[in-house]
This record gives sequence, C-alpha cells and structure tokens, in this order.
Amino acid sequence: MTPTITAFQQSPDRGQGQARDMRVRWALEEVNQPYDVRLVTFREMKEPAHLNIQPFGQIPTYEEGGLQLFESGAIVLHIAQRHAGLLPGDPDARARAIAWMFAALNTVEPPLVEIEATELLERAKPWYAQRLPLLEERARTRLESLSRRLGDAEWLDGSFSAGDLMMIGVLFRTRDLGLLENYANLGAYVSRGESRPAFRRAFAAQRAVFTASRQA
Amino acid sequence: MTPTITAFQQSPDRGQGQARDMRVRWALEEVNQPYDVRLVTFREMKEPAHLNIQPFGQIPTYEEGGLQLFESGAIVLHIAQRHAGLLPGDPDARARAIAWMFAALNTVEPPLVEIEATELLERAKPWYAQRLPLLEERARTRLESLSRRLGDAEWLDGSFSAGDLMMIGVLFRTRDLGLLENYANLGAYVSRGESRPAFRRAFAAQRAVFTASRQA
Repeated sequence: MTPTITAFQQSPDRGQGQARDMRVRWALEEVNQPYDVRLVTFREMKEPAHLNIQPFGQIPTYEEGGLQLFESGAIVLHIAQRHAGLLPGDPDARARAIAWMFAALNTVEPPLVEIEATELLERAKPWYAQRLPLLEERARTRLESLSRRLGDAEWLDGSFSAGDLMMIGVLFRTRDLGLLENYANLGAYVSRGESRPAFRRAFAAQRAVFTASRQA
Repeated sequence: MTPTITAFQQSPDRGQGQARDMRVRWALEEVNQPYDVRLVTFREMKEPAHLNIQPFGQIPTYEEGGLQLFESGAIVLHIAQRHAGLLPGDPDARARAIAWMFAALNTVEPPLVEIEATELLERAKPWYAQRLPLLEERARTRLESLSRRLGDAEWLDGSFSAGDLMMIGVLFRTRDLGLLENYANLGAYVSRGESRPAFRRAFAAQRAVFTASRQA
C-alpha cells in the first residue's frame, strides 16, 4: 500500500529542504518506497481533520492503511523498521543507530531551532544582539561534541543509517545559521548526505511543490 | 545480564526526579528489570571514558553486555522493545506509542527546557522579565494541544505505554515552572503516572543517591 504524507502547500522556505517532510521523503527514497503527498495550507493544519492526525497542527504526517503517524522522527523510524536499508541487522548496532536519531532530535536540534526562533521572532528586540552569542555558544557546544565524535569517519556508526539521515537532516536545515563553518568534518558529512541519490530525489520532489505552486 | 546505567553523583535537583536517569529507572521498574547504577561526577562526564559512551558528556547511559547506549529516549525505547509492558503488541498501536515518545522529546520538551535554561542563565539579564512571557506562550501552545488531545482519557493512546512514560517524564520534570496549572487534565495525567508503583520505586532510588551522598 502506498503511504501518504503531508507537506506544506506554501513552503515557508520556498522548497529549500527545510520543512520536516524532507526527512520523511528522504527515508522513503532511501528504501525505494513510492509515496503520495497531500499538501495542506496553514489554515488546514489547525483544523480538526488535520489535528486528528497531528495533535500539534504540524507537518509531516504519515498514513498507510489504518495507521496514522506524526513526528518526523517516529515516521522515519517506522519506515526504517519496515524496510531494509536504514538500520543495521545486528541488534546492538540497530539500537545505536536509533540512539543517534534521538540525539539528532533531542540534543542537537533544539539549540539550533532556538537560534532560528530568535531570528524569526526577536530580531527587532533590543536584546537580540546580546543574546545571539549566548545561543550560538550553546549550539556550538553540541556541534563541537558531534564533530569530535564523528572525527574522520564517513558516517556516525558504521554504514549510513537512519541516525545519519536524521542528524544530517537537522544540520542541513540549519546550515544557513553559519555555525557549521568551524567544523569541516561536519560540513563534509552533510555534503555526503546531500550527494546521495535518495536525498537528491527527495529534495527535488519537495522543491517541485513550490515550483508548481508558483506557476499556478 | 543486569544492565548498568549512569546517574549524577551530585544531583543538581537534590534527587527530586528531574535528572534524566529518572525516565530510564522508571522504564526498568515498569518491566521489572533489575539494574546497577554507576554514579559519575560532573568532571568525569567530560572525560574520555564517559565521552566514549555519551559523546555529549551527559547522563544517563546504558550498558548491557557489549551494548553501550545514550539518549534517554533511545534507552527507554530499547527497554520497551526488549521487555513486555511498555509497548502494545499491535504493530500500528506500537508505532503510535513510539510517536508519542518523539512528541514528548522533540515537540513538548524543547520549549519547556528553554524556559528552564532562561531561568538558569538569564535571570539577571535586563531582558529576562520581557522575554519570559514569550517563552511561556510558546510552551503553552504545546501544552494546549496536548491537553486537547488527551481530553478525559487516562493515557494518550489506549493503555499506558512508553509514550506516556516519556511525556509524563517531561511534564513532571518541568512542573515547577507552573505552566500545568491551567490544564487540569494534564496535572491529573502526571499524577496518575507518579502514582504508579514503578514510578515510586524509580523516584525513591534516585532520591536515595542524594540522601546517601549527604550522609557520606
């Protein structure tokens, strides 16, 4: 059965891969699973029909038969557990790959998202210039640890996994913040992710939504 | 094999259940799995031996035979997948319970932790009083959605699951912020979690670390 995901009808980033459906598209492409996309407007996201699937009124969601899922992390994990290609076969290695998914979402992403939120919501506030370095320092602490662990390895723990997909997804969508510039190995790691054919197909598909809606 | 977890030797909250080993202890108690605890100092957390297990220099970690895991979410999921009692047997219900784990850690926890971080690091800053309401508003948006979804149900999706454990763990540790007071059903939800025998045993065990170190 072909799953259906939701994505922004009007992408705030104009389809540059920053919306969180990117991670889900990428995972589906890695396992060669075709999917349908239902685009939702910002208004529709806050209406009962969508809130029934996504209680926090966000995208992406994932529907497959009777299953309705939300949270990009949970969706990627679901895809990775049901198709070969995103998790190692060895149980311990599998648990470690899942740990990197949680690390991406709960340890690395929050301080990066906090900078984005500040730039979006507090740029005009008198404290903005003083706070930004504090936020950047918190994010750098995480990136420093990640860079040290990655070292000169290709991926975080053996072969490419859903842990790398999620970590690269987080680093990729916040690359505009400029914080990766001091960590050459992290920049190269993100580039390795971006150069994967599955990433490119996912990026092109997300981009096409915006291109199509501009032409409409 | 008895797993070993790490916890703070000197608990910043004096053993009030706020350190993230609480979630792991609770999960282990729910599935009746005995465990050992290795206490680490703040200095030890930043040393190579610990960083080898936890690249970001935090607690908890989980060691079992040759497996070394970090991230409380990944550890709880690992426990839930290997023992009965924390995930439903039905595959779809299982995926939904895991989605609530990710929702707890990636959607609900970050805005709550941000308030904590601000109270800890920026209380003396001139902008503190003006920013606090902005942060609280962001957190309330999430709590409002969660409260609406929970309604008058006992747990988030059918029987108690690792999703509830993680969500209650997040709400419990940030209850001091006072934001739950406007959501009676969320307060009652947290209380239901706290009244579970496994929660009580986990809380008592974490508390005992502090009591013991005070007496030392």
